[in-house]
Amino acid sequence: MFARLCLIGVGLIGGSVAKAARQQGLCREIVGYGRAQDAANLQRAQQLGVIDSYFTDLGAALSAADCVVIASPVGAVSGIFKQLQPYWNPQTVYTDVCSTKTSVVQAAQAVFGAVPVNFVPAHPIAGAECSGVEAATADLFRQRRLIITPLDNTDPRCLDTIQRFWEAIGSSVSLMGVEHHDTVLAATSHLPHLLAFALVGLLGHKDEQREIFKYAAGGFKDFSRIASSDPTMWLDICQANKQEIIPLIQQYQAELAKIEHYLHTDQTEQLFATFTYARNARQRYLDQLED
Amino acid sequence: MFARLCLIGVGLIGGSVAKAARQQGLCREIVGYGRAQDAANLQRAQQLGVIDSYFTDLGAALSAADCVVIASPVGAVSGIFKQLQPYWNPQTVYTDVCSTKTSVVQAAQAVFGAVPVNFVPAHPIAGAECSGVEAATADLFRQRRLIITPLDNTDPRCLDTIQRFWEAIGSSVSLMGVEHHDTVLAATSHLPHLLAFALVGLLGHKDEQREIFKYAAGGFKDFSRIASSDPTMWLDICQANKQEIIPLIQQYQAELAKIEHYLHTDQTEQLFATFTYARNARQRYLDQLED
Repeated sequence: MFARLCLIGVGLIGGSVAKAARQQGLCREIVGYGRAQDAANLQRAQQLGVIDSYFTDLGAALSAADCVVIASPVGAVSGIFKQLQPYWNPQTVYTDVCSTKTSVVQAAQAVFGAVPVNFVPAHPIAGAECSGVEAATADLFRQRRLIITPLDNTDPRCLDTIQRFWEAIGSSVSLMGVEHHDTVLAATSHLPHLLAFALVGLLGHKDEQREIFKYAAGGFKDFSRIASSDPTMWLDICQANKQEIIPLIQQYQAELAKIEHYLHTDQTEQLFATFTYARNARQRYLDQLED
Repeated sequence: MFARLCLIGVGLIGGSVAKAARQQGLCREIVGYGRAQDAANLQRAQQLGVIDSYFTDLGAALSAADCVVIASPVGAVSGIFKQLQPYWNPQTVYTDVCSTKTSVVQAAQAVFGAVPVNFVPAHPIAGAECSGVEAATADLFRQRRLIITPLDNTDPRCLDTIQRFWEAIGSSVSLMGVEHHDTVLAATSHLPHLLAFALVGLLGHKDEQREIFKYAAGGFKDFSRIASSDPTMWLDICQANKQEIIPLIQQYQAELAKIEHYLHTDQTEQLFATFTYARNARQRYLDQLED
């Protein structure tokens, strides 16, 4: 598919894209780009065979690259677009893997005036609570969803190329509007992460005073897994998507306040209905997972 | 260890106790007791070999039983103590597996005047979101914690018997005060379940209006697992432990409000510190799991 795939950022996601692309034979060569302070990580990525070579000079990294994947933290994307601008090549396909799309699209608009027709905003709905290239795996995206949020002016051939790339990696691709993506992901991903951070923080402080983690079992272990996520990545995501996240937090607090009220006033039927509704909703979620 | 083990209630937990006891050769015979409306379930338990026989007559079930395990929903315990009272045998060891301990102890005190010296309140910190005897497994309690909350007057020989029973099943036994148990479990188990019910309910309603479950990935799947828990069991637990749960919900709301405030006012350092603290706290939790 590609002669040279260039990853801008070679962490968990960038590294996994590289490994998956290599495994599926989607590119002849893979190069990584990072800042000077990322050199040790890039070297490690090369040692691991995730990438063939690395550069801290962007022009050198981009030379002959026919596909460029921006796999940096969301907060770095604006600066990356600025760096890319002088080298922007109409023959190259550019894409990203960021967890928010509005901020990425707005960053592109700010730098280029309009989102370039050969930039295809994308987001693989996959991840792990581990970070870094050591955790990268070729299977991270297999049987996972991938959302592309094309703009009106996105070049259909570039869109098709990126779609086929991800399908070859094993993902199921959906197209969605930019804002809709951020609304949906705020609910299914961003809010749950904040809820987990809040719970583990609360229990963490209690545990410091008196052992409680010792008595926390499987339910807590699963529930809290996403609280092991990378703080930098999540700070970026929250800032980028705060317009969607803040109202959701408020809606969640209202839901929790209802449960507290039912409990306080012994409204057992309402509590039972609430728990039953949730259980049935989760079953609905599981059923569609198998589709 | 026992000639005849009698399970009062043969669902997921009671059934798993039976299977584990059988597997470890801890009893010669296992009988189950339930109400007339539970007969079909008891019959199924017998068909599955979980129990050898069943009774809907309590006197018959208890006959020659040297160990009785109350494995009913928490809300039924008071009625069960009343039914047991006429048959209470000082030579028999009685115990339970309820998720709350104060309500069980208070129920025993209300029926007997004081908690009988041969009743050993216990709670296996284990479970699954599945319900019913079909989900019962001999391994449910292996390498899990078991909390016994003895009273001052609990017969040390009975305590020792129940402790050895659970250790033979593979659990690691801790002793704890009754109220302390409920305080700790409110934080590590009861609150997380309510948080999961609230989130899945909120997202369930959104999904009815517009597909979002389709885009919810591994993080949500794990986080929400406990929302598949049995509504009856959790209604009982919440009612039994509301004195501990309600303040915790309020503390959690405060934690969430802080995060919302930091996000709203762009206090990025505080947000980063919050996420980092949570991540480190989870690591502390994981580290002690391996001990």
